[in-house]
Amino acid sequence: MDPHEAYSELIRRTRDLSYLASTSSLLGWDEQTFMPEGGAFHRSAQMGLLAGLHHERATDPKLGELLAVVESSDLVAEPTSPAAVNARELRRSYNRRVRLPRTLVEDLARTTSLAQPEWVAARTTCDFVRFRPWLEKIIQLKRDESACLATETPIAGKPAEAHSSHKKAPAPAPPARSPYDPLLDDYEPGANSQELATLFHALRSELVPLVATISERCRRLNHGGASTGSNQPPGGARSAILTRFFPRARQQVFGEAAAAAAGFDFKRGRLDVTAHPFCSGIGTGDCRITTRYDEHNFSDAFFGILHEVGHGLYEQGLDPEHYGTPMGEAVSLGIHESQSRLWENAVARSRPFWTYWFPMARRIFHEALSDVSLDAFHTAVNHVGPSLIRVQADELTYNLHIIVRFELEQALLSGDLAVADLPAAWNQKYEEVLGLKPGNDAEGCLQDIHWSAGLIGYFPTYTLGNLYAAQLFAKAETELGGLEEAFAHGDYESLLAWLRQKVHCEGQRRRPAELIEHITGNKPDHRPLIASLKRKYSELYGT
Amino acid sequence: MDPHEAYSELIRRTRDLSYLASTSSLLGWDEQTFMPEGGAFHRSAQMGLLAGLHHERATDPKLGELLAVVESSDLVAEPTSPAAVNARELRRSYNRRVRLPRTLVEDLARTTSLAQPEWVAARTTCDFVRFRPWLEKIIQLKRDESACLATETPIAGKPAEAHSSHKKAPAPAPPARSPYDPLLDDYEPGANSQELATLFHALRSELVPLVATISERCRRLNHGGASTGSNQPPGGARSAILTRFFPRARQQVFGEAAAAAAGFDFKRGRLDVTAHPFCSGIGTGDCRITTRYDEHNFSDAFFGILHEVGHGLYEQGLDPEHYGTPMGEAVSLGIHESQSRLWENAVARSRPFWTYWFPMARRIFHEALSDVSLDAFHTAVNHVGPSLIRVQADELTYNLHIIVRFELEQALLSGDLAVADLPAAWNQKYEEVLGLKPGNDAEGCLQDIHWSAGLIGYFPTYTLGNLYAAQLFAKAETELGGLEEAFAHGDYESLLAWLRQKVHCEGQRRRPAELIEHITGNKPDHRPLIASLKRKYSELYGT
Repeated sequence: MDPHEAYSELIRRTRDLSYLASTSSLLGWDEQTFMPEGGAFHRSAQMGLLAGLHHERATDPKLGELLAVVESSDLVAEPTSPAAVNARELRRSYNRRVRLPRTLVEDLARTTSLAQPEWVAARTTCDFVRFRPWLEKIIQLKRDESACLATETPIAGKPAEAHSSHKKAPAPAPPARSPYDPLLDDYEPGANSQELATLFHALRSELVPLVATISERCRRLNHGGASTGSNQPPGGARSAILTRFFPRARQQVFGEAAAAAAGFDFKRGRLDVTAHPFCSGIGTGDCRITTRYDEHNFSDAFFGILHEVGHGLYEQGLDPEHYGTPMGEAVSLGIHESQSRLWENAVARSRPFWTYWFPMARRIFHEALSDVSLDAFHTAVNHVGPSLIRVQADELTYNLHIIVRFELEQALLSGDLAVADLPAAWNQKYEEVLGLKPGNDAEGCLQDIHWSAGLIGYFPTYTLGNLYAAQLFAKAETELGGLEEAFAHGDYESLLAWLRQKVHCEGQRRRPAELIEHITGNKPDHRPLIASLKRKYSELYGT
Repeated sequence: MDPHEAYSELIRRTRDLSYLASTSSLLGWDEQTFMPEGGAFHRSAQMGLLAGLHHERATDPKLGELLAVVESSDLVAEPTSPAAVNARELRRSYNRRVRLPRTLVEDLARTTSLAQPEWVAARTTCDFVRFRPWLEKIIQLKRDESACLATETPIAGKPAEAHSSHKKAPAPAPPARSPYDPLLDDYEPGANSQELATLFHALRSELVPLVATISERCRRLNHGGASTGSNQPPGGARSAILTRFFPRARQQVFGEAAAAAAGFDFKRGRLDVTAHPFCSGIGTGDCRITTRYDEHNFSDAFFGILHEVGHGLYEQGLDPEHYGTPMGEAVSLGIHESQSRLWENAVARSRPFWTYWFPMARRIFHEALSDVSLDAFHTAVNHVGPSLIRVQADELTYNLHIIVRFELEQALLSGDLAVADLPAAWNQKYEEVLGLKPGNDAEGCLQDIHWSAGLIGYFPTYTLGNLYAAQLFAKAETELGGLEEAFAHGDYESLLAWLRQKVHCEGQRRRPAELIEHITGNKPDHRPLIASLKRKYSELYGT
């Protein structure tokens, strides 16, 4: 078969798979937003059918054959050309898929589906024992998955090395990998647990003392420190400003205005309400983000919207010409999270951001904010304090929550930690890292949905996102200059254009770590994040 | 193959086809309600892929083989058993599908898709000449479709008669059919144009003089007749009450209350806003209806909602056990329309309905209705007068609009009327039947979307729905008694239960005309409709 024909057919089939997957995405979005409760059973049948059709087509040996033809041709000569990138990444996902026995895939789907309500019930009643057998089964299945993915058995349709006209020197044997790595690799291609552990260790060493200093300052300031507003609630914490009454309709107007100003295109997207906020890139020209409103918590919806806007800008910035192929898709969860964190934290929690938006906020939320100064408001949205719940954590302590999970899930997978011993280990780590001990397992090891859904290896991508965000933002500042000045005028155009060009349009041309190095000149690194946190908090609290 | 196994496999495949079709329905609903405008291109690609997958599976020869096994077995011995019904109707749709060459199906899809914006543009500019070549092409394709459907060539997988253990005496040769019939049959299985023409002729003979009498009375009453309200706009028509200001949010509250009271289950359904109202039964437990609000037209949304509620109640009343198979699906467009018309007209335009709801309407729309009496309001919602636009027509003149279209589309298809001569023929018929002449083609032959979408044979199902509705409602009154009394208390339970049992739960056990005869003891008949209209309008105007 002619390689060009093979490539065209490969891309045609890949696009069709993307249309199918994007149909499931829309069904999923609808399920979270507008589906009447009576539609749940029917929806699961639709989703099951679509998943089956997708699996059938995504593991069709014909795909492997087409890939083999392309891989043995000149089309892949230039490794960062679209054809080479697509072939490389399609091979990667094809191999992953065909290595997983259908029985295992089905067992995982069934088990995690059944485990969901058990986890909800266990969390509600703070009853870890109820969830324990489910987690044991899930950990075992994930071990099996890891083992299947780690096999180097030949894949049907994979070209023998000798056929390749672009044979390279044989790659050195990969280092002995942890069973965690093939799972991590699903979310963050090319990452490995050893490098992550080194990186996270360095981050932790810096964060722990920094958190101690800042949260002490915060605590003192909130209780009897100098008041910056004329009429602060007596004795109230400064962050209590944000728990005043912020009417929902006005939160929506204000949040949508900020989202649009950041560049989220509402002609090619929507913002709706869901219990758990998310961003779903349905397809070219259709990206849907969600939030939730709490009338006594300004931060929840506002920074939640800016976070999802970051994800949404990435989706809206992908190259439509390459839609449905790796060249038109996001690189990894970590890079995706870097975009959300960059907009949520580096932009929307910055002083110049609020120089522009606070006067408008004070007009819109006049009852809540008329007696509040810009200083007080900016301090409030950057309040720091150790807490037990990850999703409520501040910018400074957030990564410590992730590091705890990263260490524990590796130990669970390797067998170093028995599931039965998880609550004790969790509580001990929280005390050690954050200085707090959960009162029960609902605010301890049962708080997150991830493990019950079989998502092992997902957590570290949150911290990678924070690290990448700081590296990218520092580089953007250096290259563009004047970002703070622009933010103070409500202008994010040059930042967005830079992200579009450096990250969004690039699709999966490079793996995440390579992309970061390509853009910033440095490998993934904890220092830019630490530097930016130190700078921000020293300005806020004079540490 | 064992017939029971064959039947199970047939049903499994049929259900999967329904899940796939219902996925397209959800995508279609989303497109009309919430999809951002930028998502249109992506959506068309998704829809195209799903249509292709559906076609591929629905014409799989394996389906024909499975059907043949079932058809030759004892499973179909009892013709109204679920298995026999499913086999009969699946055979019908399978044969229709495989008789249409893929090239024709694609050509029709492409042509009607391209014709849509041309029709919109032609209607906007009142320029029939622009639309003419598109309609010519569509009529030609529909002639081709009709010819393919009319062939009696053997279908692969259809059992030879000799194999059947339930061989009947050979059926008499069918009467020579009009080319219109195979198209009509798609919407109203078993209907034929000759019988419809007879029925519609009888209806028209009664309607024309009735309309003349009533609209003259209406006209007189509106101009100088006794005023029932204390503060009617001077010289204004009595129906002008309904064009006062009805705030949208309150229309929604009131409409939803009436919908829920009628039995529409909002836990298994939704009501949203679209440019063109519709009802989409996504699947068991998930039925979505839509409406549009005009703050200066009470009737548009309110009776629109009750109309869609009628469709929705049918969808919500289908037997979930038979979901996705003919036994769990609506019989025909005509029967579907009978449900919407029954709730819209026989229920919601009745005097006892407003005995209950008018006091609430007067509280909710107090500015608009405080000076209006129940009599005046009830008269206003039953205003009669010839008009040019079908979708704005009243209950009495509506069917005349349909009869015009029914006659014209037959003439177009047979070639008796050239497309070029359509505007003149349309205008002449409107003058003859309704006594009005369109000022231009936008309010004439370009007003409806149907022909541009290739829907030839669809219009008569609207009038069939009106006839069936009157027959069913008369029967329900006879069997149940006390319906008016119940309506006056806002109680529709016994009527709904009766419809559930007689119509909704029956699925496609019987073809439409047989169903009507089975329930009412009479074939489709124009007399119950005429009788109910005469009774209503003589009460209103003392004719």
